[in-house]
Amino acid sequence: MTTNDSASPYDADLMAAVADLGTALRELIEASVITTVGASEVRAAAELVRAATPHVAASRRPVSQLPSLDDPASGRRIYNPVSGIGSPLAPPLVIRRITGGRPGEVAAEATLGAAYEGPPSYLHGGMSALFLDQMLGAAAGAAGLWGMTARLELDYRRPVPLETRLVLRAGVTESSGRKTLLTGTIATAAEPGTTLVEAHGIFVQPRPELAAAYFGSITDAAGRHTPPRRPSDATATEGD
Amino acid sequence: MTTNDSASPYDADLMAAVADLGTALRELIEASVITTVGASEVRAAAELVRAATPHVAASRRPVSQLPSLDDPASGRRIYNPVSGIGSPLAPPLVIRRITGGRPGEVAAEATLGAAYEGPPSYLHGGMSALFLDQMLGAAAGAAGLWGMTARLELDYRRPVPLETRLVLRAGVTESSGRKTLLTGTIATAAEPGTTLVEAHGIFVQPRPELAAAYFGSITDAAGRHTPPRRPSDATATEGD
Repeated sequence: MTTNDSASPYDADLMAAVADLGTALRELIEASVITTVGASEVRAAAELVRAATPHVAASRRPVSQLPSLDDPASGRRIYNPVSGIGSPLAPPLVIRRITGGRPGEVAAEATLGAAYEGPPSYLHGGMSALFLDQMLGAAAGAAGLWGMTARLELDYRRPVPLETRLVLRAGVTESSGRKTLLTGTIATAAEPGTTLVEAHGIFVQPRPELAAAYFGSITDAAGRHTPPRRPSDATATEGD
Repeated sequence: MTTNDSASPYDADLMAAVADLGTALRELIEASVITTVGASEVRAAAELVRAATPHVAASRRPVSQLPSLDDPASGRRIYNPVSGIGSPLAPPLVIRRITGGRPGEVAAEATLGAAYEGPPSYLHGGMSALFLDQMLGAAAGAAGLWGMTARLELDYRRPVPLETRLVLRAGVTESSGRKTLLTGTIATAAEPGTTLVEAHGIFVQPRPELAAAYFGSITDAAGRHTPPRRPSDATATEGD
């Protein structure tokens, strides 16, 4: 085990291997959806993929147990389908706090390929929603206001081009108790002032009894009860 | 080339190979995010994945050219990231018209694994948005009302559990000219009457001049101009 600059230590060798597999899978996925090769070459690729699976399928955690590399307290979720370096579904978005920004202002850049396509040559409208939901959640987390999406509204002003550098931004506009209001946008890096898609969200931290019902069985890899929580939630961190 | 019951013929052998690779990748993706194996096994899987990539990376289409297996006229988009059998990102949702339903009523069932996780053991809120956007688009398409997402509203009533059979439904509520209003829901198959997430959407067919600007360069694999269109749009089908 080794330590990095974030809250909890992790196995750096495993992290590197997981990141490596995530990268390899992303490259194969993009190549597989944009390819024009014939059936025999596609089958040859499938054979190698099937040969890879037993290596990782040899053991598995229950879905109620967090991966050993995760650190929910610092927001490290390595298989998050938008931002997780270990998730082949994720571009992944590298979401950073904006330097000099207010608490809860975050940004990310991404160039998305054909795997994320909806209308020909444009980003799937639902992918814009997925990425912006993650950006809003990250903004809430950056402000110490973890919550779950209660409402999400998306306005699509212009289609979002594939294979084009994009800028995603999000921030907290208001918060009160368990409820946080957030906004987010997608624009091209070339025209960051022209919003292509805009999101407004309400994120809510579940009441303690609901949180217990939803997350009562969640543990970390060591078996300790590890529900999602806000840094200010002293009750949930008792016993850590 | 062979013909199936849908509008246009396709290469059945290639279709089978593409479906096979999609399935193989989905299985590897799920195994890779739920695994508890060590770094050396993860690296062994990554090596095989990297060996697979050159088979499909040998040639590629531009993103403005549709895959040869696609048939936009009948809604066949094999790499769609929600419903495409060739998309490793897609569960894939098999969206069917509801027998005896009104035009534009569609349904799908799915069981989603850890690859789609947001809060521990639950579906990512943005994934609900992605899947429902696709359901709404499919409902519009089933009613002959193709359009692009202009607005999408999601209400999250309860978290959507992973590894649980889900039912997704969508339908057209109103349409007028280029604009279509739609609704959709996610529930568990065990309690189909209890809506977990509800979507309301406005889909709009772009005006001709906008459609020309957005899709002017889109072709099928044979090089014919193939913009997205409604069956009723005679202008766009000229010359086919």
